[in-house]
Amino acid sequence: MKHLISPLDLSVEELDSILSLAQDIMDDPDKYSHVCDGKKLATLFYEPSTRTRLSFEAAMLNLGGKVLGFSSADSSSATKGESVADTIRVISSFADICAMRHPKEGAPTVAALHSGIPVINAGDGGHNHPTQTLTDLLTIKTLTGHLDNMTVGMCGDLKFGRTVHSLINAMVRYPNVRFILISPDELKIPDYLRKEVLDEKNIDYIETNNLEKYLPELDILYMTRVQKERFFNEEDYIRLKDSFILDAEKMKLAKKDMYVLHPLPRVNEISTDVDNDERAVYFKQVQFGVYARMALIMTLLNLSVDK
Amino acid sequence: MKHLISPLDLSVEELDSILSLAQDIMDDPDKYSHVCDGKKLATLFYEPSTRTRLSFEAAMLNLGGKVLGFSSADSSSATKGESVADTIRVISSFADICAMRHPKEGAPTVAALHSGIPVINAGDGGHNHPTQTLTDLLTIKTLTGHLDNMTVGMCGDLKFGRTVHSLINAMVRYPNVRFILISPDELKIPDYLRKEVLDEKNIDYIETNNLEKYLPELDILYMTRVQKERFFNEEDYIRLKDSFILDAEKMKLAKKDMYVLHPLPRVNEISTDVDNDERAVYFKQVQFGVYARMALIMTLLNLSVDK
Amino acid sequence: MKHLISPLDLSVEELDSILSLAQDIMDDPDKYSHVCDGKKLATLFYEPSTRTRLSFEAAMLNLGGKVLGFSSADSSSATKGESVADTIRVISSFADICAMRHPKEGAPTVAALHSGIPVINAGDGGHNHPTQTLTDLLTIKTLTGHLDNMTVGMCGDLKFGRTVHSLINAMVRYPNVRFILISPDELKIPDYLRKEVLDEKNIDYIETNNLEKYLPELDILYMTRVQKERFFNEEDYIRLKDSFILDAEKMKLAKKDMYVLHPLPRVNEISTDVDNDERAVYFKQVQFGVYARMALIMTLLNLSVDK
Repeated sequence: MKHLISPLDLSVEELDSILSLAQDIMDDPDKYSHVCDGKKLATLFYEPSTRTRLSFEAAMLNLGGKVLGFSSADSSSATKGESVADTIRVISSFADICAMRHPKEGAPTVAALHSGIPVINAGDGGHNHPTQTLTDLLTIKTLTGHLDNMTVGMCGDLKFGRTVHSLINAMVRYPNVRFILISPDELKIPDYLRKEVLDEKNIDYIETNNLEKYLPELDILYMTRVQKERFFNEEDYIRLKDSFILDAEKMKLAKKDMYVLHPLPRVNEISTDVDNDERAVYFKQVQFGVYARMALIMTLLNLSVDK
Repeated sequence: MKHLISPLDLSVEELDSILSLAQDIMDDPDKYSHVCDGKKLATLFYEPSTRTRLSFEAAMLNLGGKVLGFSSADSSSATKGESVADTIRVISSFADICAMRHPKEGAPTVAALHSGIPVINAGDGGHNHPTQTLTDLLTIKTLTGHLDNMTVGMCGDLKFGRTVHSLINAMVRYPNVRFILISPDELKIPDYLRKEVLDEKNIDYIETNNLEKYLPELDILYMTRVQKERFFNEEDYIRLKDSFILDAEKMKLAKKDMYVLHPLPRVNEISTDVDNDERAVYFKQVQFGVYARMALIMTLLNLSVDK
Repeated sequence: MKHLISPLDLSVEELDSILSLAQDIMDDPDKYSHVCDGKKLATLFYEPSTRTRLSFEAAMLNLGGKVLGFSSADSSSATKGESVADTIRVISSFADICAMRHPKEGAPTVAALHSGIPVINAGDGGHNHPTQTLTDLLTIKTLTGHLDNMTVGMCGDLKFGRTVHSLINAMVRYPNVRFILISPDELKIPDYLRKEVLDEKNIDYIETNNLEKYLPELDILYMTRVQKERFFNEEDYIRLKDSFILDAEKMKLAKKDMYVLHPLPRVNEISTDVDNDERAVYFKQVQFGVYARMALIMTLLNLSVDK
């Protein structure tokens, strides 16, 4: 029984195999349109997340499978005093695989321990969101052709942004990846990531609050939202926020083959005048997310298609 | 890329073609049961509307397609600060066509501008609800054989009832359609409709508050709800409401081949003693609504079946 | 047109036929995987019940059918002033069969009167929940091989527990079934059940508050939740609750081939140290529930498979 709870559950080899499968699906989706015939995915969303839920559902439907589940704890009775351990045992009678989003960190880990079916963590609190990381890696690999030898800019809230932490953790496993970490001082990456990951592995990185200065060096720019409520005071927020907004003017500084990613939803940290730039791939990224989840579902269910 | 945002987006020819297709589906539904194999409909309901949503879902499932989506803004995260423009770009990766209901007038128009897939307006505020109009037209055409040369009674709240406005707008395009507009004075049709549509096109119409007087002349009676809160005072409401309630007694005044339609839900404006009258077709109308939506989905997706 | 509103709607013969079909499905599910191709189930849940809803949905999907519906009255507009009679007439245009859960006793009965499709009561208030009873009977029959000649213990809240009442009503129809009714004095079975069912039919039964004393005699132990709020005072609750908790220690007193059932959700009335005991079948029971519903749907739709 395999589950996906943390992005680091997958070895580099397993990850590469999922990414290759995703790329094969992308090239010939029809070949995979019946591979999950007769299979069911349960989407167990204890907190709402339309984008992630629909991405999983689209993935399963594309594979010929079927979907059942709930989209919020309110419209479910699953939480009425019942433990996650009991709920997952019950769901194991209804579906062949499940995707669980839960406000409590660790809930999917508990579920996996008691489950009769593969459990995919679709986000647990501010903790892990491994299918977003899969999506990010598939986007980068498909567009650039590789995951090594590049300079990756991360911009915005690097302190609380779990997608940033996961992507750093995933990419330090590839050779010669350099990071430019662009954020207000208040929102720099957490200490453990700096010391136990970047320093420990001798990764080349720069911490800065100057997006424009480093923009010309980047192969990838991973933008994230800077939430007002993260700042200690309104003054700092107003002073700083514009520095972390990407617009058409700033894009002129970037390489012609740089790509801009964003885990979405975007609020105003990327100006809409960037949307039509060919380097803006955050909506393509959503499509890659569906392929990544198709490959993941097939892998966890041990399904394949004759070549 | 075609969308359906307003009932008037369709020319008379396009409308006739959709109605003919709907009638062909009705005659032989099995012929169409796989035409949407592998296609997905997204139902994006920012406000709940069970009837409309389930009608779309039944339509897509009848065509062999699949469905995903959300049934209220609460159980979705789509509204968390994300623009409709961004949401529809994301949904375009998950589905082949979408039906959107939104409390804000114009939201589906914005969506259509940024969408990679056909958008169907499933109701935007008090504004448009084009698939209800398609349903009404299909019902009338199927039961009477034509959309011209008839006297159509509209009864109830003609001021705020968007289905009434749309049906008038659609039917004035056919020759020799006469309207009897039956309502309390407070709830007469809006000025623009009287002046810019009916008067402008020299349509024959009568405004009255006397249902019984004109009932014998009608070929179609389109009933709508009179909501208590629309009245200026309770006294007027009590005095007037019974005049606009259809019951078995009043039905005796009507032609033997008149049909009673209602967009539903019905509260008390049609007495339940009318339900078993063969001329009461408001529940049949729901079934016609499914066929109308099947034809619309096929049309917007450019799908057809060999004859 | 057949409906299932109360567990007693089914004669012993009809029940046996559904249970046999369920067992055949269980033995060879693939044989039944397309029997509902092109059919749709509507799940009309006016109050949330994830377990029951997903069990119905899994059942229909397993049969090759499709599903639409709503999971709570909030996310539906079905309740906006519309009568259940009107709603079910509308739903009859969208689906081939429906499962309705409603907070008001009798709502499914009203629905059945006006429905164009079979209605399954999926729980109406504290009243009936016939598919739980079907599930319980299928579990007992499959595991023990029979429904007669056994001693059945019922433990917990026997006053308000509708599943207990239904199971007693169903099992008194089989010869030589003896009941041990284990509960606090405040939560004994209702008078009508004692007098009009057990006494009237000369059924052998004992009422007690001593689980341990009678445990060794039982072939089946049906556990239910004892809700704190059912007690008159906290003191009684604290004094009594432990007597009605099943744990590994008490299980030592039971027969080697006794089975423990529970309608779930379980809170603390069965200690988790019982879960790995082979006699604990409450999670298996969930799987039996899917088979029972598959057989029921086929029966109400008059569908069969060539042997």
